[in-house]
Amino acid sequence: MAETRKLVVRNAVIVTCDREETVIDDGAMVVEGRDIVWVGASADLPDDMAAGADREIDATGRILMPGLINMHAHCGDSLFRGLVEDLPLEEWLQTVWKAEAAILGNPDDCRLGTALGFAELLLGGVTTVMDMFWHADQSFAAAQEIGIRLASGAIFFDPPGMDGFGPEHRREQAEALFDRHGDDDEMFVGTMPHGTYTVAPKGIHEALDLARERGGFFCTHAAETRAEQETIRKQYASSVIGHLSAMGALSPRTVLAHCVHVDCDEMELLARTGTHVVHNPMSNLKLASGIAPVPEMLMRGVSLCLGTDGPISGNDMDMWLAMRLAATLHKGVREDATAMPVGEVLQMATINGARALAAESWLGSITPGKRADFILLDITGPHAAPIFDPINHVVFAAGRGDVRDVFVSGRQVVRDRQLLTMDVDELVAGVRALQPRIRAALEDGA
Amino acid sequence: MAETRKLVVRNAVIVTCDREETVIDDGAMVVEGRDIVWVGASADLPDDMAAGADREIDATGRILMPGLINMHAHCGDSLFRGLVEDLPLEEWLQTVWKAEAAILGNPDDCRLGTALGFAELLLGGVTTVMDMFWHADQSFAAAQEIGIRLASGAIFFDPPGMDGFGPEHRREQAEALFDRHGDDDEMFVGTMPHGTYTVAPKGIHEALDLARERGGFFCTHAAETRAEQETIRKQYASSVIGHLSAMGALSPRTVLAHCVHVDCDEMELLARTGTHVVHNPMSNLKLASGIAPVPEMLMRGVSLCLGTDGPISGNDMDMWLAMRLAATLHKGVREDATAMPVGEVLQMATINGARALAAESWLGSITPGKRADFILLDITGPHAAPIFDPINHVVFAAGRGDVRDVFVSGRQVVRDRQLLTMDVDELVAGVRALQPRIRAALEDGA
Repeated sequence: MAETRKLVVRNAVIVTCDREETVIDDGAMVVEGRDIVWVGASADLPDDMAAGADREIDATGRILMPGLINMHAHCGDSLFRGLVEDLPLEEWLQTVWKAEAAILGNPDDCRLGTALGFAELLLGGVTTVMDMFWHADQSFAAAQEIGIRLASGAIFFDPPGMDGFGPEHRREQAEALFDRHGDDDEMFVGTMPHGTYTVAPKGIHEALDLARERGGFFCTHAAETRAEQETIRKQYASSVIGHLSAMGALSPRTVLAHCVHVDCDEMELLARTGTHVVHNPMSNLKLASGIAPVPEMLMRGVSLCLGTDGPISGNDMDMWLAMRLAATLHKGVREDATAMPVGEVLQMATINGARALAAESWLGSITPGKRADFILLDITGPHAAPIFDPINHVVFAAGRGDVRDVFVSGRQVVRDRQLLTMDVDELVAGVRALQPRIRAALEDGA
Repeated sequence: MAETRKLVVRNAVIVTCDREETVIDDGAMVVEGRDIVWVGASADLPDDMAAGADREIDATGRILMPGLINMHAHCGDSLFRGLVEDLPLEEWLQTVWKAEAAILGNPDDCRLGTALGFAELLLGGVTTVMDMFWHADQSFAAAQEIGIRLASGAIFFDPPGMDGFGPEHRREQAEALFDRHGDDDEMFVGTMPHGTYTVAPKGIHEALDLARERGGFFCTHAAETRAEQETIRKQYASSVIGHLSAMGALSPRTVLAHCVHVDCDEMELLARTGTHVVHNPMSNLKLASGIAPVPEMLMRGVSLCLGTDGPISGNDMDMWLAMRLAATLHKGVREDATAMPVGEVLQMATINGARALAAESWLGSITPGKRADFILLDITGPHAAPIFDPINHVVFAAGRGDVRDVFVSGRQVVRDRQLLTMDVDELVAGVRALQPRIRAALEDGA
């Protein structure tokens, strides 16, 4: 694929997802190399700005918007999609872990599952994903190959890990990832302790210190279920958030997945410390974890992002569904139609993810100077007429099937719904070939 | 389009949606004219049964399943998609009605909106829809043209209707529809009073009597919001369900949309009378109506179906989303991962709709002797690997974008994601052309 150095897109409805929620009805954008250099009305595009383009796209019938930022996933769990159903989180996790432990010792299998997940995300318009999985070195390799922007790092986990390693290896694995990818200005590296119920304070502190030392993010699961709260309360006489706070883990470099069970004081603490919270509505519903108090967190100024969680709690990773749920679930639960402003939801799925990655200055909206991570969304289908407000359309009517073209750092990775960077049929065939072993793992295993 | 008289489909994963939840891993189906005549394993298909087919489909990489039955919609409201957002139902309805009243006097505009909605439904795998809208004569005409199976009838409404007619015309309109379509064995006719808060007992009785007399269904909105309950309680000193029961409106020919606010006694009454309830999870969330007690209704044996409601409370009509929500919402709200069995959800979206239409003997599953209303669902995408259980896949991972081919009564209406029976671009262009008038209606109107 020849590299496009200068790309001009015209005649798009541009939903910029900037902080002003700017929408341009007939918009144009110029990309040079990996960056957006001009955005405005098609009619205002200066000739010299458009000159010398080696590619022009007529985006009539398309919304141009930033690629979605999925702030919580476990892509490698694609291998186990649909294997375990209708159990509460704790039992479900024990069963999933049994299957994982039997399969994930093999880094190649791990990478296959992760690549399948990345393929799903790109085809669904996600250009950046924060992923927590075993053998994260394989995830970075797969991300570079497939062309998705990855935020990841080593998992910290006190029991023997599903990758065959024990807790004594975690710091070394984490450092190796910083060494290898820490200077890559297209990726994000951090440390990812699984949770406070699986990692003792020693491991949490190690992960925190390393993240700070190397300028990376710190991410963990937190306050997902009542059972988790009870466990932590028994062990530390504190809530999950209180326990994290006592360890100094709340900060603008911290990303907490879930926060379903948090009280008002905890929300204020999260807001005050600039800690980022990832709302995963589909996972929380399907695993019966509960309903996160998202409007209450918003009201208190908590920095909220959106995620899908892994494809075993979904059973897919559909950020459009996540947006639709974030926008409607809390209205229904509270019987308050004003509970969630639609613009906030779109920010949660785009620019707030960039902020949580300390990258808002160069990522997350269609703004000159930012990376050209963007998608073209088909608006010619029957569910896209009429469109009175493009932001409402994106959140309340669009779906993953509408994603036609996807670019990451100016590089096209999806064209007309086809992934350009990897053979999806081959990935699917590879996973199907593993299916008998995965099922057997569940039936035989320890 | 030449008529196919005998069609053979081979190598499909068949999700029959029959009462035994039969799945055939490598299945075949034979269709003659409008009916399914044989279903089984591909290897067991007798030569004489396959002989003389004028079309063969190799369904490798596809799930074959019945077309979905959407039991509550207002397709014509496609015209107003996204026009009014973030209001509670009562205010929202007043605003929508204002726009409707300014536009829907024109039967052609009404038909345009309805046809757009039907196009959306067919492309999304819905082959039967129960639709409540003004100018239902136009809906039947559009349904015949586009090839969707329609259940509809005249709206009863005491105030002046959005179609320009008053309550004195409703019985006459309803009779005309029975006269014209009552004998059509591809369609369903009934009477559709809007609700007990907009139709006095006189109109309800008229609608009930006529439905009984002509062998049609009776459908109304019921117990959707708390405000509605309060209105009815003040007016009739009874709950909505109690009021309907007192009028003799609960029966196996009655379809009630919503039933969000019903107590235990009412659920038992609904079960005992064989009344059908349509769950519309997306609409109930978005309009902040609340969460219907679906697991509690299931437990008591209420006949439950699934619907999308209109595209102004959605803002689309996505039955895959409705299934996903029905299967997960109640788990999350109750923090009980076993709250909704996945097989029940799929039945709600298929065969239970047929039962509510008194048509289970010839509709709603892939069963010999039933009408050939079926869809082929793509399972080659990354979110479709692995598949350990096809029913779980359909409910928890499939989406409208996966619908490749759709047949109604043996006639193909969607081929490779393209509608064969109507020009979607033309419909979309027609609706977009109306947009300025619709917006103006809201801004100027009474």
